[in-house]
Amino acid sequence: MVVKREGPTHRQRQALATKEQIAAAGRKLFAERGYVATTITAISEAADIPVPTIYSAFGNKAAILKDITQRAVAPLDVKGRYEQVVADPDPVSGLRRAAQMQREQFETMYDVMTVTMEAVRTDPEIAEMLRGIMASRERAYRAHLETVAAHLAPAMTVDEGVDVYVTLVLPEIYHSLVVERGWSPDRYETWLGDNLIRQLLGTR
Amino acid sequence: MVVKREGPTHRQRQALATKEQIAAAGRKLFAERGYVATTITAISEAADIPVPTIYSAFGNKAAILKDITQRAVAPLDVKGRYEQVVADPDPVSGLRRAAQMQREQFETMYDVMTVTMEAVRTDPEIAEMLRGIMASRERAYRAHLETVAAHLAPAMTVDEGVDVYVTLVLPEIYHSLVVERGWSPDRYETWLGDNLIRQLLGTR
Repeated sequence: MVVKREGPTHRQRQALATKEQIAAAGRKLFAERGYVATTITAISEAADIPVPTIYSAFGNKAAILKDITQRAVAPLDVKGRYEQVVADPDPVSGLRRAAQMQREQFETMYDVMTVTMEAVRTDPEIAEMLRGIMASRERAYRAHLETVAAHLAPAMTVDEGVDVYVTLVLPEIYHSLVVERGWSPDRYETWLGDNLIRQLLGTR
Repeated sequence: MVVKREGPTHRQRQALATKEQIAAAGRKLFAERGYVATTITAISEAADIPVPTIYSAFGNKAAILKDITQRAVAPLDVKGRYEQVVADPDPVSGLRRAAQMQREQFETMYDVMTVTMEAVRTDPEIAEMLRGIMASRERAYRAHLETVAAHLAPAMTVDEGVDVYVTLVLPEIYHSLVVERGWSPDRYETWLGDNLIRQLLGTR
């Protein structure tokens, strides 16, 4: 009698563990040295995994950074949480939720964002990934603003609201306030929420 | 009888004209290709000035960028205009003037700022120049906020005001609103003025 095995095989589990190990070593090195300066050889040494195994698991450095990004984003459940933001009947509380999500993204993966912003300058694959992320983010902001369109400040359109929204959530603002000026992530979240509410809804 | 000559000699005038020609060609190439990718040889070809002349006039690429920055900043009379900002008896109108100055800086030399931000990553001399510029800018903002301290929003300190000020004038915000989202510099200036006034003074 043949017992049908459930879930991934031993070999598949091994392959997943290997990718995870490469991604973890890559994230650390990218953050320390930057994307361009990090070689596959350096990742191989840090992960204690042979270079050919890395190439067969990922193909190239861009694929490693894409994988790191997916791993960092996954636990944040951006899609599910954004559905809650859009479904919030109170526009003020919806924007507070959005500010909280943004703060959590920066808090948990600011290193990955910095590396990505460096990598886009030289790597077309990463530039394409970032374009995709930015486009889907903009769609989410627009969907959110469309649901609260009736509550927008006088003379504020959904289009202008999207302009303001994408600008207020810039990583450089988080960098300036939290990394450079030493604000706590909590204070940043409040600042961002206040500004989204004030500028988009015209209320405090 | 010996007639004493006034002003620079012919040779000095020539040297000044040569530096100006190098700076103009350098600014154009830096903007087009970036700082790292622009060689002295390329500047030599574009300016039609021999490489050794460029080295004897400037010494290195960092000195060219510093000279470009000084030339771009000089006509803006930042120091004199900031004295007017600080001397303005009306805090709202002072912040509007500050927003206008900021807009003019971006409008006339955003290319130079972009190149500088690229160059700081690899060139310690440019990093030092930028540290100097940022420190003097912060002193100016602080001096301004100290004169309007009595008008600051409740719970807003001069320190926190400086944090907000340096953040709101980030070039990335100008880039997002004007370059990416297509706002006019006028609209950016209004947005910046509104936000400085609202966040620092608590009024609209």
